[in-house]
Amino acid sequence: MELLKQLCQVHAPAGNEVLMKEFILDYVEKNKANWKVQPEVIHGEEFQDCLMLVFGKPRTAIFAHMDSIGFTVKYDREIVKIGGPRTKHRYALVGKDSQGEIECEMDVPEGSEKYYYKFDREIDRGTELVFKCDFRQSDEFVQSCYMDNRLGCWNALKVAETLEDGIICFSSWEEHGGGTVRYLGKYIYEHYGVRQALISDITWVTDGVKHGKGVAISMRDRGIPRRTYINRVIDLARESGVDFQLEVEDAGGSDGNELQSSPYPFDWCFVGAPEDNVHTPDEKVHRHDIQCMLSLYKYLMLKL
Amino acid sequence: MELLKQLCQVHAPAGNEVLMKEFILDYVEKNKANWKVQPEVIHGEEFQDCLMLVFGKPRTAIFAHMDSIGFTVKYDREIVKIGGPRTKHRYALVGKDSQGEIECEMDVPEGSEKYYYKFDREIDRGTELVFKCDFRQSDEFVQSCYMDNRLGCWNALKVAETLEDGIICFSSWEEHGGGTVRYLGKYIYEHYGVRQALISDITWVTDGVKHGKGVAISMRDRGIPRRTYINRVIDLARESGVDFQLEVEDAGGSDGNELQSSPYPFDWCFVGAPEDNVHTPDEKVHRHDIQCMLSLYKYLMLKL
Amino acid sequence: MELLKQLCQVHAPAGNEVLMKEFILDYVEKNKANWKVQPEVIHGEEFQDCLMLVFGKPRTAIFAHMDSIGFTVKYDREIVKIGGPRTKHRYALVGKDSQGEIECEMDVPEGSEKYYYKFDREIDRGTELVFKCDFRQSDEFVQSCYMDNRLGCWNALKVAETLEDGIICFSSWEEHGGGTVRYLGKYIYEHYGVRQALISDITWVTDGVKHGKGVAISMRDRGIPRRTYINRVIDLARESGVDFQLEVEDAGGSDGNELQSSPYPFDWCFVGAPEDNVHTPDEKVHRHDIQCMLSLYKYLMLKL
Repeated sequence: MELLKQLCQVHAPAGNEVLMKEFILDYVEKNKANWKVQPEVIHGEEFQDCLMLVFGKPRTAIFAHMDSIGFTVKYDREIVKIGGPRTKHRYALVGKDSQGEIECEMDVPEGSEKYYYKFDREIDRGTELVFKCDFRQSDEFVQSCYMDNRLGCWNALKVAETLEDGIICFSSWEEHGGGTVRYLGKYIYEHYGVRQALISDITWVTDGVKHGKGVAISMRDRGIPRRTYINRVIDLARESGVDFQLEVEDAGGSDGNELQSSPYPFDWCFVGAPEDNVHTPDEKVHRHDIQCMLSLYKYLMLKL
Repeated sequence: MELLKQLCQVHAPAGNEVLMKEFILDYVEKNKANWKVQPEVIHGEEFQDCLMLVFGKPRTAIFAHMDSIGFTVKYDREIVKIGGPRTKHRYALVGKDSQGEIECEMDVPEGSEKYYYKFDREIDRGTELVFKCDFRQSDEFVQSCYMDNRLGCWNALKVAETLEDGIICFSSWEEHGGGTVRYLGKYIYEHYGVRQALISDITWVTDGVKHGKGVAISMRDRGIPRRTYINRVIDLARESGVDFQLEVEDAGGSDGNELQSSPYPFDWCFVGAPEDNVHTPDEKVHRHDIQCMLSLYKYLMLKL
Repeated sequence: MELLKQLCQVHAPAGNEVLMKEFILDYVEKNKANWKVQPEVIHGEEFQDCLMLVFGKPRTAIFAHMDSIGFTVKYDREIVKIGGPRTKHRYALVGKDSQGEIECEMDVPEGSEKYYYKFDREIDRGTELVFKCDFRQSDEFVQSCYMDNRLGCWNALKVAETLEDGIICFSSWEEHGGGTVRYLGKYIYEHYGVRQALISDITWVTDGVKHGKGVAISMRDRGIPRRTYINRVIDLARESGVDFQLEVEDAGGSDGNELQSSPYPFDWCFVGAPEDNVHTPDEKVHRHDIQCMLSLYKYLMLKL
């Protein structure tokens, strides 16, 4: 889990994913020699801070978003949300501005609807603050901020080791309004005819989806994917022998929603391990669910 | 109204329109020999479960959404909405899962914000339930679930009988987030240069739009169409002699909104009969308004 | 400020921008001979009521929305909003219907959530009403309805005088759901490879952004632009010597959000003077901030 730990520590709130892009580019460069197939690495200004790995003759694309939730420094010590982080008095936050590194605390005055930073100096307007990473492992669980979605990225990089045919898209801004999946989708549809997608992201432990029972296949959240495609994914999951759980929600969303509303006919399915303590510094995922996620992705990328 | 009755009974909640697609394909195959012009029938995986009929040299496209509202089975007998159905204790629901056909009741405990199914066995997670069809006709009215939008589809299929130049797009997901109109619009704009649209859908009886006073032309709902185009439609409606009513709302939407936000310069106008008991099993439309809807579409497709 | 005064008086609520398009086309025709570079003027039905000016070899596009907020006449004297205008008893409204010119008052009954017009005759259903223009100037301020965004259009037309390389896009519907920026963006990306945008629009005076302190560069509002691009804009602003203020908000939006969610990889940054009395007939902007806006645009279009 060393790779996952490193990923969880990269500063990359929505809108500023450049360090995650560089981390992944560097990782791919150093490791791809050991992979079964050498991918084409696609990136550059016309993809902003996103990147894509194209293996063999792709039929299906994995989308893993690189960005995290966080906060932006406003005026008079106030901070505003990037995405939907939980706020709590004394959460540890880190960042960097023109005066250097910052490690500060969240200040949520009792009864206040606003939240502030508490630090020994003023922080530059517009500075991004993210949760300080406290990476914890036990026999059963892995816990840290940003399992959502550094674990989804980790999963994609692990799938890459043995992937023969397929695309991995590392996307941006998923936590805050989206904005890259439509042009990534456009590119892979126009260049490779690919319109099958798997969303490698982390979902919620709920009454119907529990820790340790396997990876979740989401039949719907706020968005409703095409039933024909979902049924194929579920049939293959059954065939695979991997533990999985079916999720049905009416809230929450993912890069899938953006593919859905793009001018390209993408089928998409969210497949990911569930976590507890969603959008806090303490996101917690069961090791068995992580292993099931990886196993199922390998199987699906082979069979879809 | 036999065709409308059949359409109202097809199971096709948003995300699973495949049975409506097959019904319409079959209907077109059996009936097109009697039509004035033989359309090109366009469908296939790159259009998911949608289909298009292209007649002659098209200038205008009719969009009719095939999907209905409904419910998805969640956990512990709870059901969640597909689109925005009304919920009421004892509404009859139908569906199908791995154990076979289902006919059950909605269970809305007093004071509860959640709703459940009541059935003699557990229903598979993710199963779709839709309103049971009770199709009723009187001298004045036709009443059933899903007049919205099986009546819009019926209208399009009736227009098809005499249509010389035009496109009919049968779309999906309109009731729940959309997702097909953008690629259908892309296709017809790029292949035929068509950017005029009429939205064949059902609207609401309100203080300003009454039963029996004619088809409604919507000057706006949540979305505001381009005034120049709306004025052309209204001028033609006046010229046609068909009874119509002008609608002005600030809520509600249609496939028109998706055309509006697509990267193609579509003009659109919602033209449809009004119904009472919106999004219930008892949607009720006046026969005169249905006839006016059909007559006005024939005129508009000729003159626009 | 004669040009600005004229722009503020043009009737062009969202969805009906045709008079603004004609005004600008006419202005360009009459004035371009005095401009440093003669632009290509792009418009026509495939751009609805929008228009574009293309100068030299463009690298960056200015987006200025032509539409205003307003009201649509519904039933029984009720009016509904176009965009988000403030409502207040006795605001003066103007428009035109089949019976001629209208000058009426807003009627907001105490405790009512609805609002009405008060006029000596019935107004046609669907008629658009806009704030009556009362253009006021002092040594320090310019005040009128629709500074948002006729001042953004004014700024673009002033930049045009000396612009050598760049595009100016006059867009529609910004105040109400958008719908043109995606195809304008598509066009300039596909034809000129341009994917850098500046949003010439008006923002709010707040605790962090004051009258007279210079043009605002928005680091974020509801949308979060790409940090790399924002940093380049801020660095150039520092270099320019022009007074500017950094804005950080978590609400509000602009044409930037539509570029963000388009299937094209646009970088965008909102740069505009702040106003007080937002979305009322009394929008008020400091003259120094207007001058800074124009100066900074000239510098950015040269250097970006």
